[in-house]
Amino acid sequence: MDLRTSYQETTKRLDGHGSRTVGVLQEALQGVAADQMSDIYGNGELIKTFERKMVDLLRHDDAVFFPSGTMAQQIALRIWSDEQNNRKVAYHPLCHLEIHEQDGLKKLHGIEPILVGEADRMMTIDDVKALPDVSCLLLELPQRELGGLLPSREELEVICAYARKQNIRLHLDGARLLEVLPYYEAEAKDIAQLFDSVYISFYKGLGGVAGAILAGPEPFCQEARIWKRRYGGDLISLYPYILSADFYYEQRKDRMAEYHAAAKALASRLNAIPGISTRPLEPVSNMFHLYFKAEKAVVEEKLIEIQSHGKVGIAGYLVEKESGCATEVNIGDSFLTLTPDERETVYRQLTEAFSED
Amino acid sequence: MDLRTSYQETTKRLDGHGSRTVGVLQEALQGVAADQMSDIYGNGELIKTFERKMVDLLRHDDAVFFPSGTMAQQIALRIWSDEQNNRKVAYHPLCHLEIHEQDGLKKLHGIEPILVGEADRMMTIDDVKALPDVSCLLLELPQRELGGLLPSREELEVICAYARKQNIRLHLDGARLLEVLPYYEAEAKDIAQLFDSVYISFYKGLGGVAGAILAGPEPFCQEARIWKRRYGGDLISLYPYILSADFYYEQRKDRMAEYHAAAKALASRLNAIPGISTRPLEPVSNMFHLYFKAEKAVVEEKLIEIQSHGKVGIAGYLVEKESGCATEVNIGDSFLTLTPDERETVYRQLTEAFSED
Repeated sequence: MDLRTSYQETTKRLDGHGSRTVGVLQEALQGVAADQMSDIYGNGELIKTFERKMVDLLRHDDAVFFPSGTMAQQIALRIWSDEQNNRKVAYHPLCHLEIHEQDGLKKLHGIEPILVGEADRMMTIDDVKALPDVSCLLLELPQRELGGLLPSREELEVICAYARKQNIRLHLDGARLLEVLPYYEAEAKDIAQLFDSVYISFYKGLGGVAGAILAGPEPFCQEARIWKRRYGGDLISLYPYILSADFYYEQRKDRMAEYHAAAKALASRLNAIPGISTRPLEPVSNMFHLYFKAEKAVVEEKLIEIQSHGKVGIAGYLVEKESGCATEVNIGDSFLTLTPDERETVYRQLTEAFSED
Repeated sequence: MDLRTSYQETTKRLDGHGSRTVGVLQEALQGVAADQMSDIYGNGELIKTFERKMVDLLRHDDAVFFPSGTMAQQIALRIWSDEQNNRKVAYHPLCHLEIHEQDGLKKLHGIEPILVGEADRMMTIDDVKALPDVSCLLLELPQRELGGLLPSREELEVICAYARKQNIRLHLDGARLLEVLPYYEAEAKDIAQLFDSVYISFYKGLGGVAGAILAGPEPFCQEARIWKRRYGGDLISLYPYILSADFYYEQRKDRMAEYHAAAKALASRLNAIPGISTRPLEPVSNMFHLYFKAEKAVVEEKLIEIQSHGKVGIAGYLVEKESGCATEVNIGDSFLTLTPDERETVYRQLTEAFSED
């Protein structure tokens, strides 16, 4: 049995909100009247009401619902590039657009990304000051590929203030924006308003089916709707994503502090096990990366053993790292529904499996 | 009251399969097990099974599920352009890519479309022979903006044979491919195999929620999956569209001859009313355009009157034409569920309203 299969067969998990099943959508649609009219090509009460709700949350002028963040963010950078008449944009070397989108930004727009800072650390104000002339700077909060790191609120504000002074547009990759609010002790609008445009996702911490919001000034959102049509993202019906986004947003928006606290508690216990550590050591959101100081094949075998006995899923995949291997953990409803006994069993099993090395 | 509102308030219709409500999706999901796993970024049994079903239908090597035809078709033309190292593609002046996509093809790919023939008629083999060097020729069957016209099977085969001889790639905009099979007395594969790549839609005659299939050779589909990622169309979960596409495909794929026969019968009755005519006079699919020889404002007023009395919707919008105005009718379950009495009432009302002029 491979690690993925062994994970899929577990009925409880450290990570997430449960399996991505059709039941997730069925549950979200249960309370919706069958005669509720669909959105139609971006229009209609269903989509407009949700977009307005996100306007209220983020306090930007307007907001556009997109099928995906990939589409939304490429479009944001294109609009700012056009506005500034400058095809250079700046982002971190591990930005989603750089490593997960098959170079869509370059191939579809001829936009040239300038990578800010180094791949293994957060960007700093000094990195930003060293930039050539760019139209837009994209910041990702939290920095997912680094385990979910955040700049301090002060560093963030310094970077944003500097960019504004340089007339560099600021775009927030806020896929997990709600997830960092407890750490910043802020409301969404406080962070969103530091930026000219903001993207948030509905299937990370919120646990929806798919979908994204792109918010910004009115002319920006008008342009974004035209680009959404150009991309083939202006579907006749986006309601399966909108209704589930709204349902799980309402269900989980106020639980982020709980997830964050649980992530800190779990990380603290895991860091006490020799051979295991988390990045960051103390999570600043609901997520962290879980590192094993052993070869991938060895860790896989041990995790499969634990998962098939305890029935609590720890990892479905491992990525090789210099010091061993790692996986990602996002705390949600799954961890919160584990009993104290189940949690203790996992800690004990991990300790037995990895301390012996 | 405006025409759209008056139409929306009708409970029966000449056109379509009923209102685009959330109930359409709820019904499709009713029989799906809650623990059915989602597709994940284009992988998983749910999406692969449906793609294979479409491979069997179209007898192409591979098929890729897309959120929209807009996305699928731009990508098809881009792939053929790259393969032929030629940025010129050819299509009809009223092609979807030319008039409904905000110039996505040009803006995202720098592709230069050559318009074939004239806007008010189908393209001919002579138009195709007059083309400059192009990488790809897109044919739309039926030609929606002309009321759903079709070339004869012979003309179609002559055009395709000529293009192949010239090494021009052939792409089929088959959004309504199933809808034309009764007229051609053909199976989907017979028409699909005349082309190098084929797109079909699931929310026209089939009445699904949204979604499209793009089929073609294996390397073409591999490229298409990469472009789908670039576009932000490779969603973590496309199952709301896949499951509903499959559900309504199974429900309606064998009813196209019925829809076609009903469209012919309805058109014949409508053409008997002075001041009203259809294009084509005898439909070759389930669709036609309905023309009124009177000013738009006058027709609107009369239709609102008829719709608010008879409760059978005739038109939700009108487009101005040289000779008056027109709307589109797509025959589906709605017309088939009208009683003979309800149909006769509509004919009588239309005759009374429009013959007096």
